[in-house]
Amino acid sequence: MNMYEIISKKRDKKKLTSEEIQYFVSGYTKGTIPDYQMSALLMAIFLNGMDAEETFGLTLSMMRSGKVMDLSFIARTKVDKHSTGGVGDKASLILAPLVAACGVTVPMISGRGLGHTGGTLDKLESIPGFKTNLSLRKFVENLSEIGVSVIGQTAEIAPADKKIYALRDVTSTVNSLPLISASILSKKLAEGADALVFDVKLGNGAFMQKEEESILLAKNLIQTAKRFKKKAVALITDMNEPLGEAVGNSIEVIEAIQSLKGRGPEDLRKVTLALGAYMLILGRKAKNFKEAKEKLEESIKSGKALHKFKQMVKKQGGDPGVVDDYRLLPWAKHKITIESGQTGYVKSINTLKIGLSAVKLGAGRERLDSKIDPGVGFLIKKKVGDQVEKGENLAVIFSNDLKKGEWAKQEIKEAYQISRKRINKLKKLLYLIDEKGIKKWNVDF
Amino acid sequence: MNMYEIISKKRDKKKLTSEEIQYFVSGYTKGTIPDYQMSALLMAIFLNGMDAEETFGLTLSMMRSGKVMDLSFIARTKVDKHSTGGVGDKASLILAPLVAACGVTVPMISGRGLGHTGGTLDKLESIPGFKTNLSLRKFVENLSEIGVSVIGQTAEIAPADKKIYALRDVTSTVNSLPLISASILSKKLAEGADALVFDVKLGNGAFMQKEEESILLAKNLIQTAKRFKKKAVALITDMNEPLGEAVGNSIEVIEAIQSLKGRGPEDLRKVTLALGAYMLILGRKAKNFKEAKEKLEESIKSGKALHKFKQMVKKQGGDPGVVDDYRLLPWAKHKITIESGQTGYVKSINTLKIGLSAVKLGAGRERLDSKIDPGVGFLIKKKVGDQVEKGENLAVIFSNDLKKGEWAKQEIKEAYQISRKRINKLKKLLYLIDEKGIKKWNVDF
Repeated sequence: MNMYEIISKKRDKKKLTSEEIQYFVSGYTKGTIPDYQMSALLMAIFLNGMDAEETFGLTLSMMRSGKVMDLSFIARTKVDKHSTGGVGDKASLILAPLVAACGVTVPMISGRGLGHTGGTLDKLESIPGFKTNLSLRKFVENLSEIGVSVIGQTAEIAPADKKIYALRDVTSTVNSLPLISASILSKKLAEGADALVFDVKLGNGAFMQKEEESILLAKNLIQTAKRFKKKAVALITDMNEPLGEAVGNSIEVIEAIQSLKGRGPEDLRKVTLALGAYMLILGRKAKNFKEAKEKLEESIKSGKALHKFKQMVKKQGGDPGVVDDYRLLPWAKHKITIESGQTGYVKSINTLKIGLSAVKLGAGRERLDSKIDPGVGFLIKKKVGDQVEKGENLAVIFSNDLKKGEWAKQEIKEAYQISRKRINKLKKLLYLIDEKGIKKWNVDF
Repeated sequence: MNMYEIISKKRDKKKLTSEEIQYFVSGYTKGTIPDYQMSALLMAIFLNGMDAEETFGLTLSMMRSGKVMDLSFIARTKVDKHSTGGVGDKASLILAPLVAACGVTVPMISGRGLGHTGGTLDKLESIPGFKTNLSLRKFVENLSEIGVSVIGQTAEIAPADKKIYALRDVTSTVNSLPLISASILSKKLAEGADALVFDVKLGNGAFMQKEEESILLAKNLIQTAKRFKKKAVALITDMNEPLGEAVGNSIEVIEAIQSLKGRGPEDLRKVTLALGAYMLILGRKAKNFKEAKEKLEESIKSGKALHKFKQMVKKQGGDPGVVDDYRLLPWAKHKITIESGQTGYVKSINTLKIGLSAVKLGAGRERLDSKIDPGVGFLIKKKVGDQVEKGENLAVIFSNDLKKGEWAKQEIKEAYQISRKRINKLKKLLYLIDEKGIKKWNVDF
């Protein structure tokens, strides 16, 4: 077996064996296979695809390239949630403590901001003292003690993914179904979860902008997880406007805490409850959606969810006082409001533009080594379908640099389209996909 | 413009502009574009192709990556010939002096053995003293003085091709029409020829084994050359058995000299005359095939062609005495004959197997740094369609290592298929392709 033959096979649309996949994953991770051969193979996979068995093999080999956690000593079911990334998506910050407060263990290995999307780790790190680079030992300890821990990918977990992802990123081979699936699942499976809930984002602020593609990805994730004997459910949710109002880091933490207090924005509440409900169902803490939703609502109402959040913050070195005093979080110096130039209804919001503006303002990284400014961000007050008067606030910008702030103001203004005609609000929950198939989301709550 | 966008475009089957092509060719040659991005692009080109305009742009950029010779001060028309490679293909050794003796200047930049095929340079270097690494200045001087020179690719000629070819070779992206065309033509155009004759080999000893592919390549070469305002003709010739009898280095030089003396094998004579005739026609030394063929035959008969060969050998530092005394050439110690195990007709010869056996015997390189043994090789006495008695000689092996010789004997025996039924001899000249189109070869001579 050699790399040349493996490249040739995939180039000629042939199926790779699990041995061949294992060969190139471990060879590339060890450094015996050079970048230039790997990138030729990645392009061949991008263009000629991989079937379900190959995707399983790739996920398995990538997972096994590092440490695979065994959490079986924790009796409770372990369920994690993964989002494919969006703008203003702080659902993980709410779900981790909320679901853990309902008796499901949540082992969450999260990511940082990627492109125009924010990252759970960056957001949590805006809490003074909060550490996401815990050791795996500490991670497991926290899980068994309080049922939840959110950390970053360590060098021990799926090192193959880290190396392959970096190469995909510079060779235009990111957007490939089997490669995305294997990248997501190799990490999620290595962290020891028993079941997974996926939030596949669809729309102008997501990586997937075609419904068909998002459905294919969701199905691929679920089918591949099934081969690992892991239960999985995916929701396809709308990302044609930011989720909730807050876009940034500390500002999203505040909105997450508000949500845990039962005072979050309505669209965020719905998406969070839907995802959380399936985490409870897969975690065997509820029999159906109705029961699960009620448990989650009860946990918010009783303050248990907020308490779990405080526990989590404390366990990870952060100051739990932020929950009661938002002034303990970083705030930007300048506040700039954006007024609507006309009366009408918000027709659309260019969410990619909003995400990129946030990055440029300092909420994300323009380069790998950029430092994040945790206090900056936006509040998107008017969403699609909202009525707006001329001169009324569309959004608020929080910036530490007036010039950048003014620039962002122009960008956000351009991101809004206002129409005279009445426009419907966006339905956030679109499809539910599980092992049995796909169905349109039809529960109203 | 950046490499990531160029890769993405080709990945998405879009057409690259000449500026984009120029960008990646010069960037890769200078080293500012890394191997891993180039190999991803090469795989995308392999799988999604390039149209005629892109192929022209690629050829142009690769040609301009180095020195482009200006031979316009030589009044005579300059015509070169290129073969896509085969086993026992010594046609260039005969054609260079033969065509030059008829008044056409032949600037030939040749290659070394590649895979199972032999290389013109390796063969010529078996002549004691013969140098192929002449400077371009010396190359031009020889061309203007005696009308012929055969040298190797220097670092000055199309350096982009050298670098890109090396990468294709290890990333399984060799066999791509636009990449092959650009590789061949960038070098041939840089050497200053006015017109080109291509010998596209087809069969089990060639790189192309499908008729359709060989025709596409021939057409692609001619159409691309036309965009450079260079006249070109291609012959598609059969490579389902070695050309002539000799396979090796000094042994092929001898067969070439024999041919220049009018005593070469019949199939080699035909292929050489056909290619040479079109070199004379494009070189404006003959109006039609009949006239051209007669001029070539006359040049052999009169000894002019042989004299030109001697001149060429002398100019390049070799001993022209080899023409009259073959013992001056290297000879292998052992001679092993292969007898037929049965009576019948030769049905087929596995020419790839013969080529690979020759390499293993030392006639070619198994690794880049292997040293060639110029004295070893085969004489393929029986060709397809020949009648053979049990015990009669099929072939002769010349080896310096008895063990390797015995191994090769077994290999060659296995390469032969003998049938009881009468089998036709192979037609060597298959198609003639020029700017006007393709026609079956129908001249018998």
